[in-house]
Amino acid sequence: MKDKISIGIDIGGTNIEIGWVNSDGKILNQVNYKTNKFKTGKEFANFIAPIILEENKKYDNILGIGIGAPNGNFFTGSIEFAPNLGWDHVIPLTKLFEQNTGLKTKLTNDANAAAYAEMIYGNAKQMKNFIVITLGTGLGSGIIVNGKMLYGSTGFAGELGHVIINENGRQCGCGRKGCLETYVSATGIIKTTKELLTQSNSVLKKTANFEAKDIFSAALNGDKLALKAIEFTSKILGKAIADYTALFSPETVFLTGGLAKSHSLLIPSIKSAMNNNMLKIFKNTVEIIPSKLIDDNAGLLGAAAMMRQ
Amino acid sequence: MKDKISIGIDIGGTNIEIGWVNSDGKILNQVNYKTNKFKTGKEFANFIAPIILEENKKYDNILGIGIGAPNGNFFTGSIEFAPNLGWDHVIPLTKLFEQNTGLKTKLTNDANAAAYAEMIYGNAKQMKNFIVITLGTGLGSGIIVNGKMLYGSTGFAGELGHVIINENGRQCGCGRKGCLETYVSATGIIKTTKELLTQSNSVLKKTANFEAKDIFSAALNGDKLALKAIEFTSKILGKAIADYTALFSPETVFLTGGLAKSHSLLIPSIKSAMNNNMLKIFKNTVEIIPSKLIDDNAGLLGAAAMMRQ
Repeated sequence: MKDKISIGIDIGGTNIEIGWVNSDGKILNQVNYKTNKFKTGKEFANFIAPIILEENKKYDNILGIGIGAPNGNFFTGSIEFAPNLGWDHVIPLTKLFEQNTGLKTKLTNDANAAAYAEMIYGNAKQMKNFIVITLGTGLGSGIIVNGKMLYGSTGFAGELGHVIINENGRQCGCGRKGCLETYVSATGIIKTTKELLTQSNSVLKKTANFEAKDIFSAALNGDKLALKAIEFTSKILGKAIADYTALFSPETVFLTGGLAKSHSLLIPSIKSAMNNNMLKIFKNTVEIIPSKLIDDNAGLLGAAAMMRQ
Repeated sequence: MKDKISIGIDIGGTNIEIGWVNSDGKILNQVNYKTNKFKTGKEFANFIAPIILEENKKYDNILGIGIGAPNGNFFTGSIEFAPNLGWDHVIPLTKLFEQNTGLKTKLTNDANAAAYAEMIYGNAKQMKNFIVITLGTGLGSGIIVNGKMLYGSTGFAGELGHVIINENGRQCGCGRKGCLETYVSATGIIKTTKELLTQSNSVLKKTANFEAKDIFSAALNGDKLALKAIEFTSKILGKAIADYTALFSPETVFLTGGLAKSHSLLIPSIKSAMNNNMLKIFKNTVEIIPSKLIDDNAGLLGAAAMMRQ
């Protein structure tokens, strides 16, 4: 086939997904592995390169390989200190793939990949300034400025999850206190719910170990404490978006990731808090909507999309 | 002369400066007026256009007119709701100047103009990602991302002064509470000093109405309260810069404006607070230095520089 194909690799703490993606965002073939199958990044690259080259024989025109991974640095092409992978400290992944496959390879972090997905295959095709927030275990973000990903001078810019929103607030995995992601994430909303539970009758009390999705189910069934936890979380995010607007003036903020599947519970409170805290000149300039690709392989599609940008 | 000349107009609440600037940043001719000489923006444009056309006869090659003004919007070419000027609410300034002079005209806000000045004539010539913070009555900022000014979707992005750093903090002129500029600005440091003065013996107590520069003079003479006020202010800015680094990852933050003339008193505490609050991956990646143009006509040079970008 004559359509240009790009290969996307989405590396997560548990799974690695690899897909061959056409210009419409259709995944023509997909394979996956458990991340812990590979002890090092090099072992992974050595294993996967011949599989890629074999599959590539089916296509005439391969653009290259895009990889999305935690702490993936676009500038250096290396995964740098990603504790969840259990691999080496610094993995020169694009170099390994280019050597082993002869294909042009780019690397970025997983949240930036989600933003590329929205830009190329989602609802941001015509947009020059937008933000994609991934609400998963943590809070990641990809920020597009003037039509380009914001990388800054180090390649690590755009970390909304690590803006401190409450001095002396919750302890964050980054070593500091009060980062946005300690409140707005699966981990954050579980902690909020547990704090609220100490004085309540919520059904969640009976479950020793509940997940974020249990909080949203409880809320859908009218559980007041779950609704309170969701409102608390949404308000913090809405206020933060009001602040980020004074910095980035995005036309749209897209929500994606596991938590964003419950966007109908989250977005009304986010919008209300955003509007109440927004600087006058920015009022009614920002939309908050779920990602178009929220149920799809956004990480994989975004990694592949990066080769088309 | 064959060198390309650009005209810079710096509109402030008190003065308007107009200059003809060559490619080296030399001001070949300069005129100025009191802002309140003109009742409307249109009156100003009508008055100044023939003066510009007359002076232009001296030069072969005029690039155009760059204007820096409070609330100047690069996208619309209008000054929008700038209370300090006392002019009409929306002034379509680039349109008025283009009609009256036939020259290409661009408008931006005063802090962005300072950033253009640093980019074209200052110490940021080789930089793609940097921030210029103007410390005057308020706190303004121009943010350069990927070598371009950050305007966002509205033209008003990059307002670091209006990020809320203390919920329920000081009342801000924008109608909200706790914005950075209520602490880090001439107004902010005066307020901090007055708060500290209620329980002290500082020499400043004897002065009924002191200015920010009096605080810095007192500090240079070892006044403990003045030093404390400066440290309080610097720490807040340092922490804020640590947060902004996770967003923008600038290689340098330049300080300019009246307060920044006392950079030797400010920068050590700013750096220390920044380093103590910086996310690990960004440690030692950001410089904080005074603008090269701190004592010059940075606003005027920046307005002119915009035509060379």
